[in-house]
Amino acid sequence: MTYAALLDQLRRESPLVHCITNYVAMNFAANVLLAAGASPAMVHAPEEAGEFARIAGAVTINIGTLSSHWLEGMRAAAEAANESGKPWVLDPVAHFATTFRSKAVEELLALRPTVIRGNASEIMALAGNASSGRGVDSGDSVERAEASATSLAQRTRAVVAITGEVDFVTDGRDALRIAGGSALMPKVTAMGCALTCLIGGFVAVAPASPLIATASALACFGVAGSQAAQQAAGPGSFAWRFIDALAALDGNTLQAQVMPA
Amino acid sequence: MTYAALLDQLRRESPLVHCITNYVAMNFAANVLLAAGASPAMVHAPEEAGEFARIAGAVTINIGTLSSHWLEGMRAAAEAANESGKPWVLDPVAHFATTFRSKAVEELLALRPTVIRGNASEIMALAGNASSGRGVDSGDSVERAEASATSLAQRTRAVVAITGEVDFVTDGRDALRIAGGSALMPKVTAMGCALTCLIGGFVAVAPASPLIATASALACFGVAGSQAAQQAAGPGSFAWRFIDALAALDGNTLQAQVMPA
Amino acid sequence: MTYAALLDQLRRESPLVHCITNYVAMNFAANVLLAAGASPAMVHAPEEAGEFARIAGAVTINIGTLSSHWLEGMRAAAEAANESGKPWVLDPVAHFATTFRSKAVEELLALRPTVIRGNASEIMALAGNASSGRGVDSGDSVERAEASATSLAQRTRAVVAITGEVDFVTDGRDALRIAGGSALMPKVTAMGCALTCLIGGFVAVAPASPLIATASALACFGVAGSQAAQQAAGPGSFAWRFIDALAALDGNTLQAQVMPA
Repeated sequence: MTYAALLDQLRRESPLVHCITNYVAMNFAANVLLAAGASPAMVHAPEEAGEFARIAGAVTINIGTLSSHWLEGMRAAAEAANESGKPWVLDPVAHFATTFRSKAVEELLALRPTVIRGNASEIMALAGNASSGRGVDSGDSVERAEASATSLAQRTRAVVAITGEVDFVTDGRDALRIAGGSALMPKVTAMGCALTCLIGGFVAVAPASPLIATASALACFGVAGSQAAQQAAGPGSFAWRFIDALAALDGNTLQAQVMPA
Repeated sequence: MTYAALLDQLRRESPLVHCITNYVAMNFAANVLLAAGASPAMVHAPEEAGEFARIAGAVTINIGTLSSHWLEGMRAAAEAANESGKPWVLDPVAHFATTFRSKAVEELLALRPTVIRGNASEIMALAGNASSGRGVDSGDSVERAEASATSLAQRTRAVVAITGEVDFVTDGRDALRIAGGSALMPKVTAMGCALTCLIGGFVAVAPASPLIATASALACFGVAGSQAAQQAAGPGSFAWRFIDALAALDGNTLQAQVMPA
Repeated sequence: MTYAALLDQLRRESPLVHCITNYVAMNFAANVLLAAGASPAMVHAPEEAGEFARIAGAVTINIGTLSSHWLEGMRAAAEAANESGKPWVLDPVAHFATTFRSKAVEELLALRPTVIRGNASEIMALAGNASSGRGVDSGDSVERAEASATSLAQRTRAVVAITGEVDFVTDGRDALRIAGGSALMPKVTAMGCALTCLIGGFVAVAPASPLIATASALACFGVAGSQAAQQAAGPGSFAWRFIDALAALDGNTLQAQVMPA
């Protein structure tokens, strides 16, 4: 299974991705999924999140703008995903910042996510290590967090992805590094959250290969980010050029972004 | 009353449009209303939705990211619109996807919307016919849904609009088709939701002519969509070019988009 | 302390700004803060808003899409800001439009904001004067509201900023006018809300000088707005050019925007 083939499959099947993400990210994440070829749906109410998860190809859960009511919906969606054999992706935004957030992520981790994506500080803190995180931005390098990702993957049996200058993704045994992207990416809000949603799109079409599916999503961001940066004059023009680049992405460029770690 | 005259009126009166729409659409819909010349306000709390609806020119209600708390606000706004003789527009996003959503739309329909706008799958399901809808994207053609729109309009006494490649709008007796737009439009999230809000702007200035008002909004999207697509390199550049085109729209171009059905 | 020095400080320290703002503004406001050099975090739940405010450099509170649940979070954040000696900024969006909104703003005012930013109608109504406000857009000129701003500043001991064609900011004794910007700015939703968040960034790095900090944020918007307008073809292209201009802003251009009032 090549990365190009996976992207083709995503475009052909246009999987329904059930996203429970934060208010900041919703619009951008939906546009990222549409540009890549998936079909996004943002559904969070406890009354329907479980029912909806059963008809989706994958679920993604992001705690960015968490509240107790939304947490109920997240639980319902993750449980329904598990019961119906659908993969789900966890994005533990700034989980170390408050007690409320830490407890929520603990609960969600217990529901066994298929993939966990975070920045270096988030992954280090999730693995129980000291981090320099503050708010939603990372204070640590990806390299420093790689051992944390591996131990977290081994403990949770999830694929763990750290995104940063060079991304790192591991299932606890094999590991890959994904290059590309641009220094403008951390200057555009919700890039990481949108990437989590796109991982949902790829695991929906390749549920048996979450490591490769996750790497595919990271590689898409790497290529589209590099291309957008070539013509962008700043973070404002980067954002829409990124969407254009993602929509026009040539799957054959993906392989070159990925190296064994 | 010509379409050009209606757009002039919208720009001159800048009606206050009370939108209860989903989180994904809010920013884009507000920018669409501002570009067209209306004054948007997003107000959803049950504590104030009724009071606010009374000072607005029209109300629009979209169930995209529904929750039970928001449903209370929607009911309050629709009831206040009815009591104060204001038109209101319903957008039944993916109403067939879950029980929660279906029941909510049933309740809202009972509050007699002035206009209902949806994609083909949504309108077919609302008329009680089988549809191929899945999530928020349509699985059916506009043509297949036209009979459903007519019967739904006759049953509810609302104007019903189906948007798609060529839009169809009917009051159950007369019907119009509106051309234009671009294949990029379904690749940009919240285009339909924003259109629902713009219909609110037009029915606010022409409450006695909801069929023509709705057709005007559809024609604006048709023209601005075609123009934006001419220079767009993908869905990212399409979105902001669409806003620019809407702000610069020449009302005299609207008539050519509309044909009797 | 020059405006250029303050912008340098903002970029160097990248203060964590805790924003409780409306759904429409969240994405744009986060991108504005990132472009200017600050680190935004959108956190609203009553369970964590107080705890988070204590680790932030400043808090900003905007009642645009208010609900009773969010109001609890706003109170918790404002109280925690006060207790931990952090400045906080209030944006009383359309507070005169409904009883719910008026009462909420009364409560928030009692928690002594460091800065209040609004349009002319909002500031006039807040000072107890008659205004022509309707919905979220101003119906009054900045000039007409200047006396209201001064009396409101004297009564509340907050710095009060009115934004419009030429902005006015006062601490009740000294006052400044800030020029620049563009007629396209009221055509882009959430510009004012994003500005409120940026004021939060500046008061975070200069908590002892809220008048100068506020003027700095206004001057940034004045310069970036003028620059963006030079190349924009409408409100759609203005929005992303504004972000690019803000990210590239030369601090030395700020001083020329500000005059004593």
